Amino acid sequence: MSTIPVGILGATGMVGQQFIALLANHPWFRVEWIGASERSQGKTYREACAWRLPAPLPDRVATMKVEATAPGLAPKLMFSGLDSSVATDIEAAFARAGHTVVSNARNYRMHATVPLLIPEINADHLGLLPAQRRALGWEGAIVTNPNCAVVVLAMALAPLRQFGLDLATITTMQAISGAGYPGVPSWDILANVIPHIGGGEEEKVEKEGPKILGALQGGAVIDHPCRISATTTRVPVHNGHTGSIAVSLKQKPPLEAVVDAWQSFRGRPQALGLPTSPPQPVVHLPEVNRPQPALDAARDGGMTVTVGRLRECPVLGYKFVALGHNTIRGAAGAAILNAELMREEGLL
Amino acid sequence: MSTIPVGILGATGMVGQQFIALLANHPWFRVEWIGASERSQGKTYREACAWRLPAPLPDRVATMKVEATAPGLAPKLMFSGLDSSVATDIEAAFARAGHTVVSNARNYRMHATVPLLIPEINADHLGLLPAQRRALGWEGAIVTNPNCAVVVLAMALAPLRQFGLDLATITTMQAISGAGYPGVPSWDILANVIPHIGGGEEEKVEKEGPKILGALQGGAVIDHPCRISATTTRVPVHNGHTGSIAVSLKQKPPLEAVVDAWQSFRGRPQALGLPTSPPQPVVHLPEVNRPQPALDAARDGGMTVTVGRLRECPVLGYKFVALGHNTIRGAAGAAILNAELMREEGLL
Amino acid sequence: MSTIPVGILGATGMVGQQFIALLANHPWFRVEWIGASERSQGKTYREACAWRLPAPLPDRVATMKVEATAPGLAPKLMFSGLDSSVATDIEAAFARAGHTVVSNARNYRMHATVPLLIPEINADHLGLLPAQRRALGWEGAIVTNPNCAVVVLAMALAPLRQFGLDLATITTMQAISGAGYPGVPSWDILANVIPHIGGGEEEKVEKEGPKILGALQGGAVIDHPCRISATTTRVPVHNGHTGSIAVSLKQKPPLEAVVDAWQSFRGRPQALGLPTSPPQPVVHLPEVNRPQPALDAARDGGMTVTVGRLRECPVLGYKFVALGHNTIRGAAGAAILNAELMREEGLL
Amino acid sequence: MSTIPVGILGATGMVGQQFIALLANHPWFRVEWIGASERSQGKTYREACAWRLPAPLPDRVATMKVEATAPGLAPKLMFSGLDSSVATDIEAAFARAGHTVVSNARNYRMHATVPLLIPEINADHLGLLPAQRRALGWEGAIVTNPNCAVVVLAMALAPLRQFGLDLATITTMQAISGAGYPGVPSWDILANVIPHIGGGEEEKVEKEGPKILGALQGGAVIDHPCRISATTTRVPVHNGHTGSIAVSLKQKPPLEAVVDAWQSFRGRPQALGLPTSPPQPVVHLPEVNRPQPALDAARDGGMTVTVGRLRECPVLGYKFVALGHNTIRGAAGAAILNAELMREEGLL
Repeated sequence: MSTIPVGILGATGMVGQQFIALLANHPWFRVEWIGASERSQGKTYREACAWRLPAPLPDRVATMKVEATAPGLAPKLMFSGLDSSVATDIEAAFARAGHTVVSNARNYRMHATVPLLIPEINADHLGLLPAQRRALGWEGAIVTNPNCAVVVLAMALAPLRQFGLDLATITTMQAISGAGYPGVPSWDILANVIPHIGGGEEEKVEKEGPKILGALQGGAVIDHPCRISATTTRVPVHNGHTGSIAVSLKQKPPLEAVVDAWQSFRGRPQALGLPTSPPQPVVHLPEVNRPQPALDAARDGGMTVTVGRLRECPVLGYKFVALGHNTIRGAAGAAILNAELMREEGLL
Repeated sequence: MSTIPVGILGATGMVGQQFIALLANHPWFRVEWIGASERSQGKTYREACAWRLPAPLPDRVATMKVEATAPGLAPKLMFSGLDSSVATDIEAAFARAGHTVVSNARNYRMHATVPLLIPEINADHLGLLPAQRRALGWEGAIVTNPNCAVVVLAMALAPLRQFGLDLATITTMQAISGAGYPGVPSWDILANVIPHIGGGEEEKVEKEGPKILGALQGGAVIDHPCRISATTTRVPVHNGHTGSIAVSLKQKPPLEAVVDAWQSFRGRPQALGLPTSPPQPVVHLPEVNRPQPALDAARDGGMTVTVGRLRECPVLGYKFVALGHNTIRGAAGAAILNAELMREEGLL
Repeated sequence: MSTIPVGILGATGMVGQQFIALLANHPWFRVEWIGASERSQGKTYREACAWRLPAPLPDRVATMKVEATAPGLAPKLMFSGLDSSVATDIEAAFARAGHTVVSNARNYRMHATVPLLIPEINADHLGLLPAQRRALGWEGAIVTNPNCAVVVLAMALAPLRQFGLDLATITTMQAISGAGYPGVPSWDILANVIPHIGGGEEEKVEKEGPKILGALQGGAVIDHPCRISATTTRVPVHNGHTGSIAVSLKQKPPLEAVVDAWQSFRGRPQALGLPTSPPQPVVHLPEVNRPQPALDAARDGGMTVTVGRLRECPVLGYKFVALGHNTIRGAAGAAILNAELMREEGLL
Repeated sequence: MSTIPVGILGATGMVGQQFIALLANHPWFRVEWIGASERSQGKTYREACAWRLPAPLPDRVATMKVEATAPGLAPKLMFSGLDSSVATDIEAAFARAGHTVVSNARNYRMHATVPLLIPEINADHLGLLPAQRRALGWEGAIVTNPNCAVVVLAMALAPLRQFGLDLATITTMQAISGAGYPGVPSWDILANVIPHIGGGEEEKVEKEGPKILGALQGGAVIDHPCRISATTTRVPVHNGHTGSIAVSLKQKPPLEAVVDAWQSFRGRPQALGLPTSPPQPVVHLPEVNRPQPALDAARDGGMTVTVGRLRECPVLGYKFVALGHNTIRGAAGAAILNAELMREEGLL
């Protein structure tokens, strides 16, 4: 199978670097084009980018020239790690010019005709694309993945929809890598907790969740009726967003049924054997003090969401803890899985 | 006014050290006796104790001899920072022998005739003491303060009882000093979150809360009818337990009324002008990203609980964040305030 | 005694905030004027400044209007916490206009006629001021304090000059507050060591040290002949620069003589009883694992340098560890002490 | 090639766990026997051990029964991660009974007939084994690897012996994993530096270094004549000991020659292609702010020592920074490489 050339928008940022690291040995996709802001253009990637991952910067990418973030010679398949301050226009320009933009930016997530995709949960939301083309007149398309905090919640809740998911509350303890680079100043977060994350983080969790969990009906997504309340905080952790979650389930199942629902949950990525797909997308850990970001976030390449501490909640019914790797399952890995799904569904 | 001699049980531990630091310049109480486990007995306090606070170890205490934890020559007023594994028998022995034990240990907190005291909230629970003497046949008495996580919740909820407090959920992010010393190994908590705290922490929060908020009726405490659900986690912070709290209030007041309730909340310590009493026990911080342990836990000597981020909760009604200093407001300072209250109420 | 009005240049930065915190209750100086960059001008200080210290922002300063950093109505005595990128011109403008600029910026430190002052060590270097006025034609003057890493080294070495100080090596472990705000990104330093500090930190240590330790002769400072080698690193600590130091002393004294030299070291601030002066500027800690930034940096209001672990060095002669609070003893507190000295020497 | 059964002494500790993680997929060695202290004996490894590594506990080992630490049915080749408090007798008992003990414990490192091995540096020190058998009357043998701080220094210095290595000073910033588990309490090290490491860490560095760098002559090791001075400190880092090093080289080579010496340094493991051998044992990083533990310690599976920041030292000649992974290159990986070398040299 010949590999598919891909481009990366916002290649020098934290998510852009994670794209490059994850695609270094990808069996299907090959980075052929990188774009970043004016300051970086014309430099080699090595010059333009302060590489900040423990994984080595691949030599092949290091010597590529950084391009302007405009269509033209870019590959048809584009991954976007653009900052939300610039993503609206740039992503639209690429989609208009016929590119498929698989984006981590928040800008189009809540657009009615843009899939907000977690392939295990709502692979069928790709069915929005014909409506997107009609509505926006684009030759190409935009497909998005959720906010890095939402993905943890949505993965833990999706298997519980069968029990009549009604209400969910989440308090997150989010890693600093979620804020990009330079991101959170060390003076603010070292040995501290900041009980607020800017950019409407809580609203994102409360709104993106029902869309992700919703059903495609008549070419449109009908939000799931569950109500979500989020409190998002920042903690001094490198990678891995932890969520303390409580849920109300209309037909309250026994504890074991909830664990079974998580353990047996599979989706299209597992059925199709997508390269970035984890074997079991939600893994229940029986130990009393897990999941923990330092020990569990990187499981299965960072694509598995781990859950634990399931127990009765005197107020809502059940409560538990969930964890996912925010720059992999919650950003670059999510987008790559989306692109893999699209390829296997014949949409590239 | 002549000072009152006091003794400290469990003097070498984290809470014991905090007692000594806080009493170093106390206007009423003077440490005259220190007791600790067999390993320390007979040594000077300086020899027995690895002093771990930035505040200097007072010279006067440093040279005291550590005594066995048995009554005898100990002062009448005893502060207890004993570990729960030994507190049951030792505290009872002192109370039986006529001492007033003002304890931070959990062992007697839920006993029906033992006051679980936060002087701003339930100073009248000292009215349990006659029943305690009758029930247990002690000449002395035991008075307790709540678990360090409960105190944050209870202080934030007490002013809201007037609105028909019904349900409360809390996810805590607790400081490492709450685990004592050596406490949490650095390998476990550095740049990590541990979503579990041993020793029944969550049960304590769920059970102690209603007792503290309850009413004294006919010489007994009737638990407050609110239901509480707690998830307790450990984060790499030195001091200060943060709680993400949501509440259901039967008569849902406007946001401003909730802020007013906090800001205007005062209790017996403020009325009596107790030395360790903060001028305003609950302080609302208007900044969007407060309270934070590194910035706010030590406010007013660590005796003030700060709250912030009050906003609508789509699930329960209101949500907010509260913070308190766990070894001061949540342990040694709490006990000292209890003793100050007892003195002014003529109970010493 | 009536108080002296002072102004603060660079008032919104980390050092500027520390100036305001330290001057809040100063017996001699009263902040009457604050200046900062264009972005802040015209706002109140509270609006312009993201206050980041645990000490509360004084209300009186919070409501002051931030001025442009130009002379005019500013008080005669100015403290400067300006960034080095702008300090050269602004400080000169103030000095030219007759102000006394007591600066923490590095720009004029190595100028031949500018005192690089640590009052305990070289109070007589104020004797450079007549030459400064002649050389630069200023009505006013600039006086500087050393780099925050140098001050720790210089304070520890000054008492050893009597033994024929010949060589010194230092490896620092510097706190993040030394990088200002936002300073070091948390992604870079959380649970990490960065073995390099930008802006010529090591050169500053190697060059400023001999000037500080040097002698005033004939109206000029003759550098001390010791040779210094510095390696400067950043560690995840809030406040307090630690130095691992080795020295070669020509007449190698016994260990006790070195300890005595530190313990008995006093200077003009102690003789004059300056308000910010620590009672003992260098304190030797006998415990085997001290000094530690978390326990010792804030000693005596952050103005004391602590030393410990003195022992034989197989290569240079002696080695030890020294520690000082970088934003107090190494910045704002240093400048305030300099101004106090100048006032008592009749130079304001 | 059939695999060789191995046993692990001290299997539940930090180093023991690292042995098990590193041997999980080893091409030559297969863990068949695990021994630990009495408390663990008779339990399965999963029951006995609180597994604390992000790498998963291999299922095959998890179900093994923990044995008493006595010879008998144990395999001939034993890895020892024993605590030094018990290693002397246990390791001797195994060696006497004919086992080859490849030990990370310090107890026999400085024994005149025990190789203190870093295979890239002194593979020929295995020539001590005949003398060991004669001297101690053992059927088996003990071979050791250095202290985790020494290995970083020794690897960086070995390539410089050719230039007349004369003096070396090192200040280490050591990771918490070096203290084992539970090791350093979080209260002591969070956002702090502890300028002391117990157990004679500095003496180990100063004494083990010359033995490792020494020459085998007439069946005995002659210490290298360089003099070493060490200051060892603990910093809040998970893995990776950083050293700030200065050296005096008799024939002072140009900077480039030093870099070349590191980059071209190879030893027996590279010649033999040992499985755990890094391709290039010492790697020079040209970036101004490297090596850093968070980015560089895990390079090549944690077996590479990285160096950087080479520059002139005004006092000793040259200075630089070196880094190595303390529980891999400095402990379990080191011992495994030693065993691999012995196998290829026909000594198992």
